[in-house]
Amino acid sequence: MRAVEDVDAALELQLVGIGTGNPAHLTLAAIEALNQAALILLPRKGEDKLELLDLRRHICARVLDGPVRIVEFDLPQRAADGDYLAAVADWHEAIAAEWLRQIDVHLPTGGGKVALLVWGDPSLYDSTLRIAAHVQHERPLHVSVVPGITSLQVLTAAHRIPLNDVAAPVMITTGRRLREQGWPVGADTVAVMLDGNCAFTTLEGAGIEIWWGAYVGMAQQALVAGPLGEVADQIVRLRAQLRARHGWIMDIYLLRRRSRG
Amino acid sequence: MRAVEDVDAALELQLVGIGTGNPAHLTLAAIEALNQAALILLPRKGEDKLELLDLRRHICARVLDGPVRIVEFDLPQRAADGDYLAAVADWHEAIAAEWLRQIDVHLPTGGGKVALLVWGDPSLYDSTLRIAAHVQHERPLHVSVVPGITSLQVLTAAHRIPLNDVAAPVMITTGRRLREQGWPVGADTVAVMLDGNCAFTTLEGAGIEIWWGAYVGMAQQALVAGPLGEVADQIVRLRAQLRARHGWIMDIYLLRRRSRG
Repeated sequence: MRAVEDVDAALELQLVGIGTGNPAHLTLAAIEALNQAALILLPRKGEDKLELLDLRRHICARVLDGPVRIVEFDLPQRAADGDYLAAVADWHEAIAAEWLRQIDVHLPTGGGKVALLVWGDPSLYDSTLRIAAHVQHERPLHVSVVPGITSLQVLTAAHRIPLNDVAAPVMITTGRRLREQGWPVGADTVAVMLDGNCAFTTLEGAGIEIWWGAYVGMAQQALVAGPLGEVADQIVRLRAQLRARHGWIMDIYLLRRRSRG
Repeated sequence: MRAVEDVDAALELQLVGIGTGNPAHLTLAAIEALNQAALILLPRKGEDKLELLDLRRHICARVLDGPVRIVEFDLPQRAADGDYLAAVADWHEAIAAEWLRQIDVHLPTGGGKVALLVWGDPSLYDSTLRIAAHVQHERPLHVSVVPGITSLQVLTAAHRIPLNDVAAPVMITTGRRLREQGWPVGADTVAVMLDGNCAFTTLEGAGIEIWWGAYVGMAQQALVAGPLGEVADQIVRLRAQLRARHGWIMDIYLLRRRSRG
């Protein structure tokens, strides 16, 4: 990726991690950043993600002490066909252009702090830093990051489990990779994100435990844990039911197998 | 590990992630948990970690709205010789016994919420959940976890970098494993924790970038980033200087190599 640079500029983009929907998971630093913003940009991502926009609106309403200009804008769509990484890069460029358009309209002096509410933490499977690098290519801009609680942390907290075994490694990966490549080499604990299709069903369940969560941190939170062979079907059914009920789903899980040394 | 169980009990142990020393990284949930505690236990870990105890005291002083009983106690020492995992298990048992002793002295009714301030997040390279499982073996006890910002998130936020490449995996591991086993198979991004000895110096630097940080989140925070071959010596020197100046050091780093597909 093109890296975010260290720039001294009148315009500052603050990428504010907000956790996963539980307003109590906001940090004091996040609340301060939102209150000090001259402009907050809230992306609209289409009907199915309306609940997430509502949560962002709710968080702003709850933590802002005074008036801050909040602007909602329609997020450009990603091309669904062609090369995946190329489509992602084009999409990020289109979003960067849209951010700049909104900034030019709503911050006509060209200066001040612009805050973006980032689901979870800006470091983990999130595009905001990459889009910010595109923006910085067009305009002198200082970028800062406020860390937020990730879905992975909310999952382990809800299940009251450590992420790692003592002094042991953890692989964080995607559903697609788990499905295509099987259990990763070199780690007995695997955290799986971005899985639209229950990739855990492709594993031999023997000796593997799963801790699964959907909508972690939100009012709809659902949890299942147990030996993979015993609970995999239950998770598949529950996931389908929840998706039908709410119209969308976000889930995440941790897998741990008996150590193979 | 012996898992924490779901228990209905008058006694509740709250493991509260507090981030890495920056009080602004506390979440609203953490602040609420500390305020609702009947007892807060603060471990004393010896002279070299006095600064960390001071930070915990400072956090309590800053976020508590009213009087909460805060009790400091000396943490048992871990045996330095013998089998590492066995020594860790014995040590956890000794700490669990000490927690119970403090609870019996300071909560004679045997009920209420006992809060422990956990550096970073209770899920990541932390023993508190394992110790809580030992306690639960001795006493009916409800355990809850409040997630906190980890040093890994503070590192990536300070460097303003994503943890992962687009849709790519990340290995979280220890300095010891990196030293003994080299670059892990299956990931081009590696986050290294618990490294007392600059294990990155054992890698061939070509094609690897490093983002390093010490005391991340604290006033003493120090950062270095660049191609590993160019900055490794600088980090080794700076780390030794900082350790001499402060009497202790905690550091963490992220390594990324050019993708090998």
